[in-house]
Amino acid sequence: MLENELRKRKELVESALKEIIHKGKPEELYEASIHLLKAGGKRLRPVTVLLTAELVGGKSEDAISAAIAVELLHNFTLIHDDIMDEDEMRRGIPTVHSLWGVPYAILAGDTLHALSFEILSSSRAPPERVVRAVEILSKACVEICEGQWMDMEFEKRENVSEDEYLEMVGKKTGALYEASAMLGGVIGGGEEEEIKALGSYGRNVGIGFQIYDDILDLIGKGEEIGKDRGSDIAEGKKTMLVIRARELGVELPEVRKRDEDSVEEIVEILKNFGIMDYAIRRAEEYVERGKKALEIFPDCKTKKILLELADFMIKRSY
Amino acid sequence: MLENELRKRKELVESALKEIIHKGKPEELYEASIHLLKAGGKRLRPVTVLLTAELVGGKSEDAISAAIAVELLHNFTLIHDDIMDEDEMRRGIPTVHSLWGVPYAILAGDTLHALSFEILSSSRAPPERVVRAVEILSKACVEICEGQWMDMEFEKRENVSEDEYLEMVGKKTGALYEASAMLGGVIGGGEEEEIKALGSYGRNVGIGFQIYDDILDLIGKGEEIGKDRGSDIAEGKKTMLVIRARELGVELPEVRKRDEDSVEEIVEILKNFGIMDYAIRRAEEYVERGKKALEIFPDCKTKKILLELADFMIKRSY
Repeated sequence: MLENELRKRKELVESALKEIIHKGKPEELYEASIHLLKAGGKRLRPVTVLLTAELVGGKSEDAISAAIAVELLHNFTLIHDDIMDEDEMRRGIPTVHSLWGVPYAILAGDTLHALSFEILSSSRAPPERVVRAVEILSKACVEICEGQWMDMEFEKRENVSEDEYLEMVGKKTGALYEASAMLGGVIGGGEEEEIKALGSYGRNVGIGFQIYDDILDLIGKGEEIGKDRGSDIAEGKKTMLVIRARELGVELPEVRKRDEDSVEEIVEILKNFGIMDYAIRRAEEYVERGKKALEIFPDCKTKKILLELADFMIKRSY
Repeated sequence: MLENELRKRKELVESALKEIIHKGKPEELYEASIHLLKAGGKRLRPVTVLLTAELVGGKSEDAISAAIAVELLHNFTLIHDDIMDEDEMRRGIPTVHSLWGVPYAILAGDTLHALSFEILSSSRAPPERVVRAVEILSKACVEICEGQWMDMEFEKRENVSEDEYLEMVGKKTGALYEASAMLGGVIGGGEEEEIKALGSYGRNVGIGFQIYDDILDLIGKGEEIGKDRGSDIAEGKKTMLVIRARELGVELPEVRKRDEDSVEEIVEILKNFGIMDYAIRRAEEYVERGKKALEIFPDCKTKKILLELADFMIKRSY
């Protein structure tokens, strides 16, 4: 069921994206801005906005602006993150700064950031809900910046604890899933209690998503994850796997970018010491916590989709 | 009169800035974000927001969030522009990226960008006005990005026309003055016709401001303009002066950064060929056009201040 339901809503998002992202001038600025957007993506965040709007009894058409705003904001953070992490590939294509250079990529990201709020302000919902939505999305964006700053700081440190890691991914990834789930609830006219529950769903599921994403960096197929395997670990990112290994006193060999053999070697070690299983269990725990937050909602088809979507976060291959 | 009236409102802005910019975590992210803000600045944009709110009969207290939002947005663009232009000094202190490095400076700017919308969403005005304000500010920000992209493109070209330059500065500088003037009008509850007139005031005065700013780059005192004289021209920026010189067939010697003698030489040439006077005249024209837009408002003290403020844009020494 899930696949069909996601596809239906993803199509709504894609057609709205095509309509909204008209090419402005200078043309090249807009080309650079939508470069990653055009390359696809799972669109899990905007689909979450549509689903949570439905769950509280709203219309998904009214939430489409908020959904697009979230996707643009996400893509802006990807463009800037790629500059900071010096990543060359994303979604199977060269990153924005590797095509246009850093100054132009900064601007391409800034443009999406601003467009995100422009589109949110054009939402058809009552104005008090739109104001609340702007507050939620902007606060999430501040958190994302805080999380990315922590992530970069952690690269310079060896003794990062699991709690610190969880705080960081809560901000870097959890905050935008939390905002996505809340935005649908707010635009759809949900009660305070419902919006709060949706926020908890989004944040926890988002943390699970990120823990699993760190695993995918090592075990995913390059053509499916759209980048070189092991690039996070080669950059010195402190993922849950790396942190757990250090805590257990397990030494990991150095990984160089684009060195498949060293990645295989690390995966083997992580499996043997049960570190891979540990991380998957932690990801599952967060997803379960997120699903539990939806208990306050009566059973219905949309709730079922959101529960399945939560499971999908840690079962996907890309 | 002007000085006193500006100071009163600037103090409102400063104290609100102090209150709102609480230091979050990670501390260093917030230090980097407010680094330039703390170094001062004329605060002409937020003061314009307060004044235009008063002019349409609103209370300046209600417009303070919008005023702060504009100042944060402006400071975000400064941080990113300094990265793109590789500028080392601003407001007499080292730029953010020269202290923290490019990746952290990108994040510091992104944080201010998001905080700007967060603060705008906390505005005390009725929600429909706040939504309109978000639309205006986000659209202005998109224009700023377009203008900065054009500015960088122009550095690679010799044959930039005056019309192209004016389009570029309209976006890069005019758009945010336009938005500032409109925001006050919107939050203060102005009529459509008034908001439109305020927009025209802001945009034209902003263009005059920028033409004069390009002149200040050459004739200003380093300690007053807070950066090295001639840095724009050394970077190959196509200012109105450079464009006019090319159109008249006047050859300008090359300027290297921090080379006072070559700056003096250029100033001499620009004066002798009447190019300096020409640019000042064009700046005056725009300021006059902006002042004319205020004709629809009955004479009052606030209007008088806004008219004097327009004149100040092209009479300031920093």
